[in-house]
Amino acid sequence: PTADESFQRISSLPTAPSSPPPAAPLPGSANLPNISSSLSFKAKRTKTYEDRKEHVKNIVGRRLLNIMSSKQTNLCLAADVDSMSEMLQLADLVGPQICILKTHCDIVIDWTSSSGKQLSDIANKHNFLIFEDRKFADIGNTVIKQASSGVFKITEWADIVNAHSVPGPGIIEGLKKSATKYDRELGLLMLAEMSSKGNLATALPGYTEETLEMARKHSDFVFGFISMGAFGSSADQDSFIFMTPGVQMSVGGDTMGQQYVTPHHVIYEKKSDVIIVGRGIFTADDPVTAAHDYRKAGWDAYLSRIGEL
Amino acid sequence: PTADESFQRISSLPTAPSSPPPAAPLPGSANLPNISSSLSFKAKRTKTYEDRKEHVKNIVGRRLLNIMSSKQTNLCLAADVDSMSEMLQLADLVGPQICILKTHCDIVIDWTSSSGKQLSDIANKHNFLIFEDRKFADIGNTVIKQASSGVFKITEWADIVNAHSVPGPGIIEGLKKSATKYDRELGLLMLAEMSSKGNLATALPGYTEETLEMARKHSDFVFGFISMGAFGSSADQDSFIFMTPGVQMSVGGDTMGQQYVTPHHVIYEKKSDVIIVGRGIFTADDPVTAAHDYRKAGWDAYLSRIGEL
Repeated sequence: PTADESFQRISSLPTAPSSPPPAAPLPGSANLPNISSSLSFKAKRTKTYEDRKEHVKNIVGRRLLNIMSSKQTNLCLAADVDSMSEMLQLADLVGPQICILKTHCDIVIDWTSSSGKQLSDIANKHNFLIFEDRKFADIGNTVIKQASSGVFKITEWADIVNAHSVPGPGIIEGLKKSATKYDRELGLLMLAEMSSKGNLATALPGYTEETLEMARKHSDFVFGFISMGAFGSSADQDSFIFMTPGVQMSVGGDTMGQQYVTPHHVIYEKKSDVIIVGRGIFTADDPVTAAHDYRKAGWDAYLSRIGEL
Repeated sequence: PTADESFQRISSLPTAPSSPPPAAPLPGSANLPNISSSLSFKAKRTKTYEDRKEHVKNIVGRRLLNIMSSKQTNLCLAADVDSMSEMLQLADLVGPQICILKTHCDIVIDWTSSSGKQLSDIANKHNFLIFEDRKFADIGNTVIKQASSGVFKITEWADIVNAHSVPGPGIIEGLKKSATKYDRELGLLMLAEMSSKGNLATALPGYTEETLEMARKHSDFVFGFISMGAFGSSADQDSFIFMTPGVQMSVGGDTMGQQYVTPHHVIYEKKSDVIIVGRGIFTADDPVTAAHDYRKAGWDAYLSRIGEL
């Protein structure tokens, strides 16, 4: 199917009247039309995580669905902390609650060559995956080195990385090549939409569709998206895993344009698969209790969606 | 003026018949129209770098024009090497030929906390600026830390950084805030177009226009663009500095989607201001001679453009 025929956004789901209206045009923008309103939603997304495994070509994607099913969690912790001691402590405390630990290795002040291994050990202990949120955004030849070399050697320890589609399909080919260096499995998420105010991925017609097209052509490697909800054809929604950032228990935002949505909104209404929670957990007085609450909210929303609650 | 009225792309310059035709639609794309063909070019861009200083609000942008005028160079070296010893040697050898050294600190294997200072010392010795090509692409709250903290502390030693516009204006606000940490001057370039095949910045209508709008609103901080040529109104083309990557002496490409253009094409035909050359110099048998040749080709194209050659 062409992108035109098979592309549907959840935002126009008729059974979700509480979805927010399409975003207003950006101030000063060239009055771009909002495509969401012209797309109808068909897929119900009632398949279980377990049942979708057979549709996912990338092995890391299948491992993720396995972990989600067995641990009964669709919670990804965004561990945006400044030191390795905080990160390791947080990962160990919250590990039992999560399917993914999301890192920003480049904001950690005391990252060393053993930090990746330390994270991997905790990931193995608690059975979660590590997702380095590097948001690769360069040409293929450069991302090969950024992903597999330098101080961080990301593909030596991360199971999942993500990339912007702006540079074109060369970025996917570069990251695929970077994964061969350490003889480990790697899966890629493409950034199809963002949670920040005025972001062009959401505002520009064609951005998400073009990103989907790139992912379809590399579905052995790209197993999902960072987005505000599910999109694409029914087949896309079976075979790709959708992860949504900017999740808090109550709606709101920060002073830098971040906009928050709730677990129920993300998983039940927007049909995403994974909630990504950062400040809601790691700045809480009791991160373990907070993680437990987010895990339950996310899982209950999923059970409701598949009709088991 | 609105973006619609004042936006012109150089690609439709009537006096440049050797410009390549508008790019074909991406395979599998939703047949996106190509806006370049509907935009007419008016600005001649014959002002000297010196004369444009008064139009540039950001101090780093003015410093750059000063350096370009006094050293008679519009050459930026992309020092994409793997070790600090290579980077420092290259910077010291080629320093007299360049206005900017562009770095990827995260591909350097042996980066340490003193590496930034070592680069700064050579930059001061040869009077060039340091541009860390991080291509920031996250939400505001995250880029603050990525730019000023972690292992690299980029804003402690870089004069220039760049950012994708995909996350929306929060990324500019975050980077502006990151520059206050070390009490140094910083200037930002926005990625308005890319040189890689199938890139969405070039392919998607509205992408470059929206990026320009963001830059206009933050012109105290954003002093220019990464693009394939100049664009925007005459006022934009006086006040913003345009830098173009993917430059080689002959056209061609790599196996990962990079597409090369020549110095003359970039500076004379596309009216860009700075040529960014990487592999053409640092993989040459004699990088100093290669840098000299690129500098001369770029400067001659500029002199021809302003009518002095």
